[in-house]
Amino acid sequence: MWGGRFDLPPAALMQEINASLPYDRRLYSQDIRGSQAHAAMLAKQGILTAEEEKKIQEGLSLILKEIEDGRFEFRRELEDIHMAVEARLKELIGDVGGKLHTARSRNDQVAVDMKLFVREECEKAIFLLKDLRRVLKKRAAENVETIMPGFTHLQVAQPISFGFYLHAYYEMFGRDIKRFKNAFDVMGECPLGAAALAGTPYNMDRFFTAEKLGFGTPTKNAFDSVSDRDFVLEYLSCASICAMHLSRLAEEMVVFSSQPFGFVKMPQEYTSGSSIMPQKCNPDAAELLRAKTGRIYGSLMTLLTVMKGLPLAYSKDMQEDKECLFDACDTLVLGLKVMTAMIDGLTIRADNMRKALENGFPTATDLADWLVKKAGIPFRQAHHMTGQIVKFAEQNDLRLADVPLTEMQKICPQITQDVYAVLSAEASLNARQSYGGTAPDQLRDRLAETEEL
Amino acid sequence: MWGGRFDLPPAALMQEINASLPYDRRLYSQDIRGSQAHAAMLAKQGILTAEEEKKIQEGLSLILKEIEDGRFEFRRELEDIHMAVEARLKELIGDVGGKLHTARSRNDQVAVDMKLFVREECEKAIFLLKDLRRVLKKRAAENVETIMPGFTHLQVAQPISFGFYLHAYYEMFGRDIKRFKNAFDVMGECPLGAAALAGTPYNMDRFFTAEKLGFGTPTKNAFDSVSDRDFVLEYLSCASICAMHLSRLAEEMVVFSSQPFGFVKMPQEYTSGSSIMPQKCNPDAAELLRAKTGRIYGSLMTLLTVMKGLPLAYSKDMQEDKECLFDACDTLVLGLKVMTAMIDGLTIRADNMRKALENGFPTATDLADWLVKKAGIPFRQAHHMTGQIVKFAEQNDLRLADVPLTEMQKICPQITQDVYAVLSAEASLNARQSYGGTAPDQLRDRLAETEEL
Amino acid sequence: MWGGRFDLPPAALMQEINASLPYDRRLYSQDIRGSQAHAAMLAKQGILTAEEEKKIQEGLSLILKEIEDGRFEFRRELEDIHMAVEARLKELIGDVGGKLHTARSRNDQVAVDMKLFVREECEKAIFLLKDLRRVLKKRAAENVETIMPGFTHLQVAQPISFGFYLHAYYEMFGRDIKRFKNAFDVMGECPLGAAALAGTPYNMDRFFTAEKLGFGTPTKNAFDSVSDRDFVLEYLSCASICAMHLSRLAEEMVVFSSQPFGFVKMPQEYTSGSSIMPQKCNPDAAELLRAKTGRIYGSLMTLLTVMKGLPLAYSKDMQEDKECLFDACDTLVLGLKVMTAMIDGLTIRADNMRKALENGFPTATDLADWLVKKAGIPFRQAHHMTGQIVKFAEQNDLRLADVPLTEMQKICPQITQDVYAVLSAEASLNARQSYGGTAPDQLRDRLAETEEL
Amino acid sequence: MWGGRFDLPPAALMQEINASLPYDRRLYSQDIRGSQAHAAMLAKQGILTAEEEKKIQEGLSLILKEIEDGRFEFRRELEDIHMAVEARLKELIGDVGGKLHTARSRNDQVAVDMKLFVREECEKAIFLLKDLRRVLKKRAAENVETIMPGFTHLQVAQPISFGFYLHAYYEMFGRDIKRFKNAFDVMGECPLGAAALAGTPYNMDRFFTAEKLGFGTPTKNAFDSVSDRDFVLEYLSCASICAMHLSRLAEEMVVFSSQPFGFVKMPQEYTSGSSIMPQKCNPDAAELLRAKTGRIYGSLMTLLTVMKGLPLAYSKDMQEDKECLFDACDTLVLGLKVMTAMIDGLTIRADNMRKALENGFPTATDLADWLVKKAGIPFRQAHHMTGQIVKFAEQNDLRLADVPLTEMQKICPQITQDVYAVLSAEASLNARQSYGGTAPDQLRDRLAETEEL
Repeated sequence: MWGGRFDLPPAALMQEINASLPYDRRLYSQDIRGSQAHAAMLAKQGILTAEEEKKIQEGLSLILKEIEDGRFEFRRELEDIHMAVEARLKELIGDVGGKLHTARSRNDQVAVDMKLFVREECEKAIFLLKDLRRVLKKRAAENVETIMPGFTHLQVAQPISFGFYLHAYYEMFGRDIKRFKNAFDVMGECPLGAAALAGTPYNMDRFFTAEKLGFGTPTKNAFDSVSDRDFVLEYLSCASICAMHLSRLAEEMVVFSSQPFGFVKMPQEYTSGSSIMPQKCNPDAAELLRAKTGRIYGSLMTLLTVMKGLPLAYSKDMQEDKECLFDACDTLVLGLKVMTAMIDGLTIRADNMRKALENGFPTATDLADWLVKKAGIPFRQAHHMTGQIVKFAEQNDLRLADVPLTEMQKICPQITQDVYAVLSAEASLNARQSYGGTAPDQLRDRLAETEEL
Repeated sequence: MWGGRFDLPPAALMQEINASLPYDRRLYSQDIRGSQAHAAMLAKQGILTAEEEKKIQEGLSLILKEIEDGRFEFRRELEDIHMAVEARLKELIGDVGGKLHTARSRNDQVAVDMKLFVREECEKAIFLLKDLRRVLKKRAAENVETIMPGFTHLQVAQPISFGFYLHAYYEMFGRDIKRFKNAFDVMGECPLGAAALAGTPYNMDRFFTAEKLGFGTPTKNAFDSVSDRDFVLEYLSCASICAMHLSRLAEEMVVFSSQPFGFVKMPQEYTSGSSIMPQKCNPDAAELLRAKTGRIYGSLMTLLTVMKGLPLAYSKDMQEDKECLFDACDTLVLGLKVMTAMIDGLTIRADNMRKALENGFPTATDLADWLVKKAGIPFRQAHHMTGQIVKFAEQNDLRLADVPLTEMQKICPQITQDVYAVLSAEASLNARQSYGGTAPDQLRDRLAETEEL
Repeated sequence: MWGGRFDLPPAALMQEINASLPYDRRLYSQDIRGSQAHAAMLAKQGILTAEEEKKIQEGLSLILKEIEDGRFEFRRELEDIHMAVEARLKELIGDVGGKLHTARSRNDQVAVDMKLFVREECEKAIFLLKDLRRVLKKRAAENVETIMPGFTHLQVAQPISFGFYLHAYYEMFGRDIKRFKNAFDVMGECPLGAAALAGTPYNMDRFFTAEKLGFGTPTKNAFDSVSDRDFVLEYLSCASICAMHLSRLAEEMVVFSSQPFGFVKMPQEYTSGSSIMPQKCNPDAAELLRAKTGRIYGSLMTLLTVMKGLPLAYSKDMQEDKECLFDACDTLVLGLKVMTAMIDGLTIRADNMRKALENGFPTATDLADWLVKKAGIPFRQAHHMTGQIVKFAEQNDLRLADVPLTEMQKICPQITQDVYAVLSAEASLNARQSYGGTAPDQLRDRLAETEEL
Repeated sequence: MWGGRFDLPPAALMQEINASLPYDRRLYSQDIRGSQAHAAMLAKQGILTAEEEKKIQEGLSLILKEIEDGRFEFRRELEDIHMAVEARLKELIGDVGGKLHTARSRNDQVAVDMKLFVREECEKAIFLLKDLRRVLKKRAAENVETIMPGFTHLQVAQPISFGFYLHAYYEMFGRDIKRFKNAFDVMGECPLGAAALAGTPYNMDRFFTAEKLGFGTPTKNAFDSVSDRDFVLEYLSCASICAMHLSRLAEEMVVFSSQPFGFVKMPQEYTSGSSIMPQKCNPDAAELLRAKTGRIYGSLMTLLTVMKGLPLAYSKDMQEDKECLFDACDTLVLGLKVMTAMIDGLTIRADNMRKALENGFPTATDLADWLVKKAGIPFRQAHHMTGQIVKFAEQNDLRLADVPLTEMQKICPQITQDVYAVLSAEASLNARQSYGGTAPDQLRDRLAETEEL
C-alpha cells in the first residue's frame, strides 16, 4: 500500500493497533469535502485537466452516497478513511484517481478533516447551549417570585428566588458559548496544502481551498500545520468547563430532589427504579450528567498527555486524538440535550422551598443591614450584635422574626419595632435591588436584556 | 420494568444516557457465574427448592451458550446485562426465574461482576507481563556484551551493554507484576449478598458464594460493598504505571531507530509508510505505544473524578466505571502484546552503537576513578581535573584515549601511561562489577537469578 | 562546581529553574542517613580508612545538628541538598570530605533519599489511618442502634444505623492501609550504589548499605535504579484513592449538616462564619477535605505526565517529582488528622435522622420480602405489587404503615394483618441479619472482630 | 472574628487547614485596589461621607505601603488577606474602618481579587509570549537557508530550513497569545457588589466600580458571580496548551543536542554538569521546561476536580483555587523566560544538520514529484516506483543521487538524466514554494508579514 519499499505486510497485531479506520470512518464527509476542494483547486491551477477533475468529483460524490447509504465496505487493511476513500475512488474511476493525492499528504489531509469536524462540533455545542439557555430563561421567568433559601457552603444563607438560581446557570452557559466561539475563531486557518511537512513544489492556491472549506485563511507554516492539535485541545478545554457547569447543576438536582430537601421533583421519564426497592424513583439522569464530567476531563487529560513533548512534525501518536475527541463530543451533546429536557420537565415544589426558609436564620444579614442603615452602627459591630441575637434565637428554638423586641434590645438598645419589617424572607428578597441582585424586578430586567450570543 | 410505581416509560434520551447494555454486555460471563453461585447458595439454604435451582441453573447455562453463539438478542430497553439475562431467564423457564433475584440487588450484582472482571484482567496483565519479561530476558542475554553508550539526560554518560539496558526494563515490568498481584489480593472480598445496601433478612451463606467465585471471604459491610470501586481504581493505577513504562521504552525505540542514532531497526511488520514520501518506514507501533499511555491516564482521571465526593451507597454515577475500565484493559493488553512482539523482532545495529561511543567522552568517569584509586586524589578533585582534560580534548577534537600523556600531565602530574588502559569503552564496561552493574559477568549473574513472580 | 569543563556559571534564570535546594532541603535527614551508611560501607570495604570514616561521620552528625537547630545556611547556588551537605562537610573536615562521593552519584543518592522519604510517609499514612479507624470504630459502636435512612442515589432506600454507616468508612480506610503496606513492600529495594547509571568499578557491598537503611535487598539493575520513580507514583496512587474516600465522607458531612437534613452538627471548632451573614456556621473543614482531593489527584497527574515517555536513565525532568510529592504528603497527613478530629467531635442528631425515615417509604423492600416469604410470590411480582402500594401511599400522602389493609389487599389479596410487623423502620433494621448487614447484632459482631492491619 | 454567634475559637488543626493567609497574601494589591474602588463608590452613592471615605482611602494606601515595605504583620489567625487588611485598617483609623465592608462580602471580594490577578497574569503571559516570538523570529530570519532534515515520526522526511522549523513555533505561540486574549475578554465582567450571593439592599453603582477596576461591565447575576471560577480554569487551560508547546520545543532541544544528532548546542549557562561524570554538560533547562508541563497539567486537573459537582453559591472548596493557580502562573512565567533565553543563546551546528541529510533519502518525494510532472505518471504509481528505487539504494548503501540512471530506468523507463537536478537537498528546499512552504523566499515573505498580536 505504501509503495515499493516494503517487503512485508503489517503483522496482524500491528493492524490491530495501527488501523484507525474503525473509528476515523466517522470523518468520511469531512474527508470527501476536503478532497473535493483539493481537486477543484488542482484543476483551477491546471494540475488536473477539467476532464480529470470531473471524474474525480463524480467518483467522490458516488462514494459519499455509498457511505451514507451503508453500502460502502470499510476494510481495516486500508488503515484509515483517507486510504479507504482513495482506494474506492480508483476502483470507480481508474488510474486517474491516483492524481488526487498530488500536492497533498495524509498529514495535511487528516489535519483538515479533524479541523472541519471540530468546527462543526463547536457549532453544535453552541446550538445546544442556546437551547438550554432558552429553557433556563423560560423556567427562570416562571419562578421570579418562587422564594427559596440561597445556600453558601450548603448552609442556608439568604432568601433568593428559584428564578434567580436558574439565571445563574443561564449566565454560566453564556460564557460557555463565548468560549466555543473563541475556539472556533482560533481554529480558523486551513492546513490543507501543507502536504507532508514542508509544502510542495506545485503551483497551488491554498487561499482557494481555505475559502471553499469555510476557513478564513490558509495556515502560514506547513510544518506547524501538520503538527498542530491545539484546536482539539481547545475544544476539550471548553467542553471540560461546560461539563463542570453541567455537573454542578446536576449535583444540585440530586440534592434538591432528595426527600429531606424536596425542592424539585425530577420528570419521571428521567428517573429510574430499583431492582429490589419497589419505592425507588432515582434521579439517574442527573447522576449520569454529574459523572460524565469525569469522562470529558479524562479525554482532555488523554490528549494533553499524548501531545506532551511530542517532536514535530506529524508523529503517529497524534492518531490518538480521535477516539477521546469523539467520545467527548458525544458525551457533551447528549449531556446538553438531557439537561435541557430535564430542566424543562422539572416540577418545582415551592411549598418545600418556602418551608426550608424557616430554618437557618436567612434574614440575619437584613437585621445587620438594618442596624447599619437605621441605627448608624458600623457594619462589623452590627454583624456581631446580630450574631448574638441569632445565638439567643437558636438556643430558644425561635425564628428571628419571633425573638421579642426586649430580648433584641438587651443586645442592641437602638433596635425598634420597625426591625421586624425586614425580617421576613419576602422583604429580604424584595430588598436586594442592586444590579444583579435577586429582587424580582431586578431579575426581570436582567432576563429582559436581549443577549446576542 | 421497575414495578408498579411508574406511570411513564423512560424518555428516548433517557434510554440513551441510561442504558449500559451496549457496553456492560461484556460482563455476561461474570454475571451468569455470579447468578449461578447465588442460586446454588439459595438452594443450599432452603430458599429455593432443588427443583427450582435446577431450572435456574439450566436456564442460565442455556443463556450463556446463546450469548457465546451470538444468538442472544440484547435489547437496550432492558437497560443492563443483569436485566437482559433475567428477562431471558423468565422467557425460558417462566415465573420461577423471578426467584433468582431474591436476597440480592443489582447493586451487589454489578459489584461482584466488576470485581470478577477486574480480577481476571489483573491475571491477564500478569500473564502478558511475564511474556514480555521472557522476551526481554532472552534479548538481554543475547546482548550482554553488545556495547553502547548509556545516556543520562540523553547525553552520553558511560558505556553499558544493550543487554543491561533491556534488563532495566525487565526489572520495571517485574514491579508491575508485583503491583497487579497486590491489587488482586486487596480485591479479594466478595460483595455478593450485600443486596441493595443494608444486607437482607434472608438466611444467606455469603462465605459459600465467596468461595464458589474464588474470593477469600465476603465483604464485612454491605453499605461499603455496593459503594466501593477502589478495585477499579487500583487496576487503573497499576495500568497507568505500567503504561508509563511502556511509553519510556517506546520513546527510546523511536529515538534509537532515528537515522542519527540508528541503534536499532524496527521489525518491518511493525512500521508503516507514508502516502507521500516513498522512502518512509516509520516506527508507528512504538509511537502508538507511547501515545496510548495518555488513554490509560485518561481513564484513571475519569474514574477518580467520578468517585470524588460521591455519597454512599450506590449512585448511578458509578455506572461510568465501565467504559473507561474496558478501554484501559484493552489498551494495556494490546500494548503489552505489541511491545513483546516488537522487542522480539528488533534488529540490533551493534556497529552504530559502538560508533556512538566515539563521541561524548564516555570514559571520563573511569579517568576520574583512576585518579582516585591510583593517585590517591579525593574524588572531587579528580573530577575537576578530568573536566579540564575533557575540555582540552573537546577543543582539539580528540577522544579521551587520544589525548597525549604530556597534555594530561600538565593538568595532573601524577598521571602515568597506565591510565590509557581504563579509557577504552570495553575496559569501562568490564570494570563495572558492582552488584547490579553493567559488567557482562555481573549481568549474567543477575539474569541467571530465577525470580518467581 | 561541576569541575573543570565549564567556562561559565549558570545564568540567574537557570539557577531559578534548576536549583532544587529551596524544596529538597526537606530531605536533609534522609540524605545524611544515606551518606552515613555509604561511608560505613566504604570503610568496611577498605575504600576509606577508619580514620577517614570517623571524620566523615562526625562531620555529617554535626551538619544534621546544625540543620535541626536552624543554624545551617542553605545557599541556592549549591543547587541541591546533596551538594549543600557535601560543601559544608568539606568546610568542616577538609579535603577528606571529597572522598565520601566515591562510588556514588547524585543519581543514586537522590533515589535513595526519595525512597527513604516515601517509605516514611507510607508509615505515617498507615499510622494516621489507624487512628482514624479507631475513632470511626468508637463512634460506630456508640451508634449501633441510631437509626437513619440509608440512601442510594441520595434517595431514601432502607433503614440503617449510623454505626453501620460509619463502619463502611472503617472498611474503606482499612483497604487504604493495605495499599500503603503493599506500596511500602514493593519499594523495598535499595538503589544506593547504582552510581550514575552503570554501577561502579569499586568493590562495594550494596547488601550492607541496603540493610543499614532498612531495605530488604539492593536493586538488581543500576540503570533502572536511577531511572525509577514508580514508588512515588505508587504513593500518589494510594493517596489519591484515600483522598477520594475522605472526599466522600466529607461530602456527606456537608450534606448531612445542611439544615434540610440536620443529621449531624459539625464541631464548632471545625466550622467558620461569614463576614456578612451573622448567622453562619459553615462546615469549612469538611469542604476543604473534599476539595483537597483535587490537589492530590493533581499531584498524581503531574508526575504521571513528567514520567511519560522519559528516556532512561536519570533525566532532569525527574527533579519535578519532589514538590508534587511533598504537597500530596502534607495534604494527606493534614486531611487525615482533620477528619479524625471532626468525626470525633461530631454531634449526632438522632431525632432528625429518625424523622427523615417518615419519607421515602424505606420499608418497601421489607413489604416485598414479606410477600416472597409469607405468600410465596416470586420476588419480581412482589416487587411490582409493592410498587403499586407505594404509588397509592404517595398519592394519598401516607406512610406505608398507614395504608389500610383493605387497600393493600386490593393489590395483593394474600396480604394479612401480619404484614404491618415488618413495616416499621426498627423491624427492618433488626431483620437485616445477613453477614455484613445493618442489624445491630450483626454490626456488633463485625466491630468485635479484631483486625490486625 | 465572625461575630457573636460563636462560643469557641477554631481548633489549631482547623486554623492550619482553613487559613489562606500564608498564600493569599499574594493578592494584597488586588485586594486593596478593590477596596479603594468600593469605598469610592460608597462615597459617591452617599453610603459613606466624604470624610469617612478619605480616612478609609488613606488607611488603605498606608497599608499598601506597609506591605510593600515588608513592615506588615500577617497573622494567620486573621484567616485571609481580606480580614488581615480590614483588621489593620481598624487599628489605623478606628471604627470607621468597619464601614468599608458595607454592601459587600468576602465572597465577591475574593472573586474580584482573583479576577484582577488572573487578568494581570494573562497580560504577563502575552507580554512574555511576544518576547519569545521576537527571538524565534530573529533566529528564524538568521536561518532561512540553514538546511536540515525535517522529521516526521522522528524519521528523516524532507529537507527543511532551521528557520522554517523555528517559524513553526512562532506560529504556535501566536495561537497562545490569541487564546490568552480571548480568556482575558471572557473574564471581563466585575463581580464586586454581588455581596454574599444575592446582591444587597444598598443603592450601589456597580458600573462605577467595574469601570474603575478596568472591567467592561458588572456581572449580571450575583449568585453566579460568587460561584464562578471559570476564569481560573480558562487561564489554566491556556497555560496547559502553551506549556505543551514549550514541552515539544524542549524535547526537540534535548534530542537535537544529543551527540548522535548534534544539531544544536545549548548555551552553557543553561546546562549543568554531573557530580560523578566530569565530561557532562546536560541540557537541564530544556528538560525542566519539558517536565514542568506536568505541573501545569496537574494544576488544571486539581481545579477541574475541585469544581466538579460543587453546589452554588460559594463553598469553601473554592479556596483551593489559589495555590494551584499561583504555581501554574509562576511556572509559566519562568518557563517562557527560560525558553526565550535558551533559544536566543542557542548555537546552530549547520554542518551536522547538513550531514544528517545524507541518510534517510530525504528527496524521495522530489523524485516522485518529478515522475508526476515530467513523465505524467499518476502520483500513486510514481510513489511506488520511487519506493523501489529507495529499496535498491538502501541495499547498495547509496544516496538517491548516487543511484545510476540505468538502475533507475530498470524501474521506470521514462526517467532521464534531468532527474538528478531535483535530488539534492538544496533543490528540494528551494522547490517548496507553496504558501507556507519551506523555500527560503516563501519563508522570508511569511516572516515579513507584520502580525499585530
